[in-house]
Amino acid sequence: MALRVAVAGASGYAGGEVLRLLLGHPEIEIGALTGGSNAGARFGTLQPHLLPLADRVLEPTTPEVLAGHDIVFLGLPHGQSAAVAEALGEDVLVVDCGADFRLKDAATWEKFYGSPHAGTWPYGLPELPGHRAALKGTKRIAVPGCYPTAVSLALFPAYAAKLAEPEAVIVAASGTSGAGKAVKAHLLGSEVMGSMSPYGVGGGHRHTPEMAQNLGPVAGEPVTVSFTPTLAPMPRGILATCSAKAKPGVTAEALRAAYQEALAGEPFVHLLPEGQWPQTSSVYGSNAALIQVALDEHAGRIIAISAIDNLVKGTAGGAVQSMNIALGLPEELGLPMNGVAP
Amino acid sequence: MALRVAVAGASGYAGGEVLRLLLGHPEIEIGALTGGSNAGARFGTLQPHLLPLADRVLEPTTPEVLAGHDIVFLGLPHGQSAAVAEALGEDVLVVDCGADFRLKDAATWEKFYGSPHAGTWPYGLPELPGHRAALKGTKRIAVPGCYPTAVSLALFPAYAAKLAEPEAVIVAASGTSGAGKAVKAHLLGSEVMGSMSPYGVGGGHRHTPEMAQNLGPVAGEPVTVSFTPTLAPMPRGILATCSAKAKPGVTAEALRAAYQEALAGEPFVHLLPEGQWPQTSSVYGSNAALIQVALDEHAGRIIAISAIDNLVKGTAGGAVQSMNIALGLPEELGLPMNGVAP
Amino acid sequence: MALRVAVAGASGYAGGEVLRLLLGHPEIEIGALTGGSNAGARFGTLQPHLLPLADRVLEPTTPEVLAGHDIVFLGLPHGQSAAVAEALGEDVLVVDCGADFRLKDAATWEKFYGSPHAGTWPYGLPELPGHRAALKGTKRIAVPGCYPTAVSLALFPAYAAKLAEPEAVIVAASGTSGAGKAVKAHLLGSEVMGSMSPYGVGGGHRHTPEMAQNLGPVAGEPVTVSFTPTLAPMPRGILATCSAKAKPGVTAEALRAAYQEALAGEPFVHLLPEGQWPQTSSVYGSNAALIQVALDEHAGRIIAISAIDNLVKGTAGGAVQSMNIALGLPEELGLPMNGVAP
Amino acid sequence: MALRVAVAGASGYAGGEVLRLLLGHPEIEIGALTGGSNAGARFGTLQPHLLPLADRVLEPTTPEVLAGHDIVFLGLPHGQSAAVAEALGEDVLVVDCGADFRLKDAATWEKFYGSPHAGTWPYGLPELPGHRAALKGTKRIAVPGCYPTAVSLALFPAYAAKLAEPEAVIVAASGTSGAGKAVKAHLLGSEVMGSMSPYGVGGGHRHTPEMAQNLGPVAGEPVTVSFTPTLAPMPRGILATCSAKAKPGVTAEALRAAYQEALAGEPFVHLLPEGQWPQTSSVYGSNAALIQVALDEHAGRIIAISAIDNLVKGTAGGAVQSMNIALGLPEELGLPMNGVAP
Repeated sequence: MALRVAVAGASGYAGGEVLRLLLGHPEIEIGALTGGSNAGARFGTLQPHLLPLADRVLEPTTPEVLAGHDIVFLGLPHGQSAAVAEALGEDVLVVDCGADFRLKDAATWEKFYGSPHAGTWPYGLPELPGHRAALKGTKRIAVPGCYPTAVSLALFPAYAAKLAEPEAVIVAASGTSGAGKAVKAHLLGSEVMGSMSPYGVGGGHRHTPEMAQNLGPVAGEPVTVSFTPTLAPMPRGILATCSAKAKPGVTAEALRAAYQEALAGEPFVHLLPEGQWPQTSSVYGSNAALIQVALDEHAGRIIAISAIDNLVKGTAGGAVQSMNIALGLPEELGLPMNGVAP
Repeated sequence: MALRVAVAGASGYAGGEVLRLLLGHPEIEIGALTGGSNAGARFGTLQPHLLPLADRVLEPTTPEVLAGHDIVFLGLPHGQSAAVAEALGEDVLVVDCGADFRLKDAATWEKFYGSPHAGTWPYGLPELPGHRAALKGTKRIAVPGCYPTAVSLALFPAYAAKLAEPEAVIVAASGTSGAGKAVKAHLLGSEVMGSMSPYGVGGGHRHTPEMAQNLGPVAGEPVTVSFTPTLAPMPRGILATCSAKAKPGVTAEALRAAYQEALAGEPFVHLLPEGQWPQTSSVYGSNAALIQVALDEHAGRIIAISAIDNLVKGTAGGAVQSMNIALGLPEELGLPMNGVAP
Repeated sequence: MALRVAVAGASGYAGGEVLRLLLGHPEIEIGALTGGSNAGARFGTLQPHLLPLADRVLEPTTPEVLAGHDIVFLGLPHGQSAAVAEALGEDVLVVDCGADFRLKDAATWEKFYGSPHAGTWPYGLPELPGHRAALKGTKRIAVPGCYPTAVSLALFPAYAAKLAEPEAVIVAASGTSGAGKAVKAHLLGSEVMGSMSPYGVGGGHRHTPEMAQNLGPVAGEPVTVSFTPTLAPMPRGILATCSAKAKPGVTAEALRAAYQEALAGEPFVHLLPEGQWPQTSSVYGSNAALIQVALDEHAGRIIAISAIDNLVKGTAGGAVQSMNIALGLPEELGLPMNGVAP
Repeated sequence: MALRVAVAGASGYAGGEVLRLLLGHPEIEIGALTGGSNAGARFGTLQPHLLPLADRVLEPTTPEVLAGHDIVFLGLPHGQSAAVAEALGEDVLVVDCGADFRLKDAATWEKFYGSPHAGTWPYGLPELPGHRAALKGTKRIAVPGCYPTAVSLALFPAYAAKLAEPEAVIVAASGTSGAGKAVKAHLLGSEVMGSMSPYGVGGGHRHTPEMAQNLGPVAGEPVTVSFTPTLAPMPRGILATCSAKAKPGVTAEALRAAYQEALAGEPFVHLLPEGQWPQTSSVYGSNAALIQVALDEHAGRIIAISAIDNLVKGTAGGAVQSMNIALGLPEELGLPMNGVAP
């Protein structure tokens, strides 16, 4: 019998992508679709690419509407998830695509998000050591940020093998859907096409502490993260270029072996053959993460690069993958492994 | 038991998309992948988005390699399909994504393609009146051209209801994958980004007679087609803007009713609600075709617009849909209905 | 001595482009820059590409601020130009980049724009027969719409030579800057990249009657226009594909001769050599219009295609060209002839 | 009297951009245009955006054709400039847009370029301390690489003020024109649109030693460079994100003061106001370089970001700027200061 799912925030990019994936998931039945200011609208005018749901009507995000589902996905603005989750029963699986339950440290949360800390839920990045186990059977999942997903997957093998110094320098390019569907002048097509632009420079981006939280425990020492995000003229995709000084004596062979070991058996995270580098087009629409690593011997640095689709492995796909684990379903169920290219 | 499929021309855009779709098809097992100059290469370097096939090796396109499959898809340059098909047994289902067997009139073929006419196979556009029946049980399928698919779906309801004069004017914009993977200077990213450019203007495009061949029998009179294709700065998608003078007395209501009737029950071709127009992003990666129609009362013209993904409904998806019909499988099997958007 | 120019609506796309061109104009000095809700902002945050004006401050659009200039360009929302123009003296050259003074017929204006007709000013398309003379010495200029510019330049030679039937069918693709800088969800980069979408289909676009107004007098008979605009994934550029049935007996030679004659000596409108078709990248940032024409003998239609930059020849460049004529300056002064490509 | 210029390699992107700029230069007259395999072709088919040169014919790159010019720009494949330059007289100003004369160290040259070292010419980055003086009166100019231009302008102020540790980490995104006009499969529009991809990772890119050569002398100690270039889905532009550990005690105020001092009076290199970050669209088609810098106090790193147009300040504009200096003309002559945006 199919599990019944509600999606709160169904008119946004995260909500839409959750629905696209769940429409192909054999154990799921789509229940309520809710939204804020768009409530009452025909869903086909909001997400015209989701044809099977075109005749649905968006409902308001209320406890009554969300009641009666086995699973509820939240794609809400920061700070709104806690109240909605509380109104749902403890036996409902709640998957929060927002940031509210990602960070463990309350002071860090308050510094970067400016609101009271709501708590911490099991973190939906099963590839990180220890996390897959924590997701099994859980009723609450905090879906990671898109950048922390890309960066953590690229760097954790180096830190797990104690090959990298604990100062990571990261520059990542993201497609514009990462900025969401809210209308802002700098996100107009006329502004973004043909342009690369940085933002949140100098340590201010909210995903920075999330990366440090992921990598430190793996490294066994605190990892300082310098993170610069940039907006790229494409709708989807993250290319994360991550580097750190190599610890003394690290060889290219040891580096590659560490990545092979750390990523062995992962269904969605692939270390590419030597000499082939990830590109975001290869994972367009797919839940795969492509990884490559090199040792720059002259500069003494490890360079690890990952490519993901920010809306799939970076949000909705990671969410569904974690849902599968929580429910005891096969981890790959309903998740695309192939990109839509060219 | 799964049907075993070979794809000849697997390194091209059509072949790659056939494989992307077949990897999600529950009745299919991927057999040989063949190519020309790329034979011997690791498949993951040629189609890095098709992860499950990354470790395959491209084989040469020979009868020996293609033997032993239930189904063979051909994604070959024009003029090469006949020889390959002949070497395959009559009990093998051969699906030709090229043009060789589309046109019925030998003189027209020779005028537009400059080589001897190879014959005509059942035409893989099941939505056209009479075509679905002809595909059932066939062992040979000619996959339509991408533009004729978009244009025929947009206009056939008007012609079937005898509402349009037999002179169609069509301007279509296509993503660059429609031009294939052959490296040509005008297809470089630097040249196509930020630019719209026409080609084959004035009646010279090879898809023009294919449109006339599709629409004439539906109209019950020969239809003259004026067709101007343009290249748009996007990888995929066709937006076809089609118009014809309305026959005397046509009303907007009659027009809409004709489209509703002609498209009723079609799994992949959707008439949008009044006031909503198709956009190519809605069908990115999907086998759907979105249609809208309006009557311009001042100009006395019917304007019908369709959006498809040139590589899916326009090529590989149409091919798999027709394959399903030929094999007696459910027509939608393995075919995505949702676009990848944004 | 330099002429002093004010630009009202300087933070918009039209206003910004007027300023980019005037900064390179040897007879012009930039005076007041005004805006609406942005008044008070540092100009460098609004138009960061206009470095020499970065430290300017946007002023409110009031008669006091606009007073004391020789020339005032208006880049205002429809319906606001008349009041501003009235407050300026009759000896000030007012160049309206909006629609308010383009249409001659009050009923047509009211039908398409929904507000009272403000009047008609000399129309800034000097290449149209008779218009260059009307611009000389004028103190009021109505800058044409971007689409009417592209379409009128492509078709008027055919109509002037009486070669085309008076029913024109036009499909044009425009870059997103044509939709302006107002923030709307469907203009987000995530929505427009990778997508072609039509709008204003079926005769509803406001530029339709402007095209008819331009072509009819040239043809010597009313011209009915069927116009379908589409939004293309690029910031700038219009590619207009225009066609009409050829009058009986028209030959390709006569057609080409008509275009050569009509466009001879024009500094900005170029008929390309036979076989070469216009592409929008060639006129990126330039005031040039590229034209090509063909006779489709099978369909009996004349196909004329033009490429312009919607913000230059389609708006600000056309405005400056007309300003030059009005002032008795050389028509090409300060106007780029080369595109920025690739 | 105008100076007569020949451009060798006029059909490439560098050559085309040199011509676009020189067409707007008041002291220059365009002489011979030469090319390799395209010799004999009408120039309008090769560079359709350069309308005033459309009827020219491309000549072969021979000493005879290049003779009789005051200035010769070379846009040739690596390794070909020395022979061409030798055949020109010592009184001819030769401006090499290629790499042949950039590197001082022969061993480094041979390691990265695989051919014998041709020598070193004055380096056309006048903003680097000491370089403007070296360009005055020279008859030979080595135009810097596009990435080294972007990176050196972003980082030299920090090194000149001894604020940064000598290990720079750079990730830069470039538009596809940086890869040139040679047709390669991975540069097809279908491949690059919607995708970010890295290349030359791990220290292998040829521009790496050029950056070290520029920054070391300014720092007064050798600077190790870790450089990762990425290809972005846009035709033009470089966004370089550069960082280095701050030396002990560096403050944000000292950092900003160092940049203000180092860039004061530079006509083309602009330090943006605090809080505003460079984007490549602002310098599209312009010779400007936009710079911003921040101190990430948590990570202890200086983050400096620059945006340039790779074909203008990164190649042809830098070349013309250096030419102006060499000839004793005003440095800004003929060079656009405004970007073409949006």
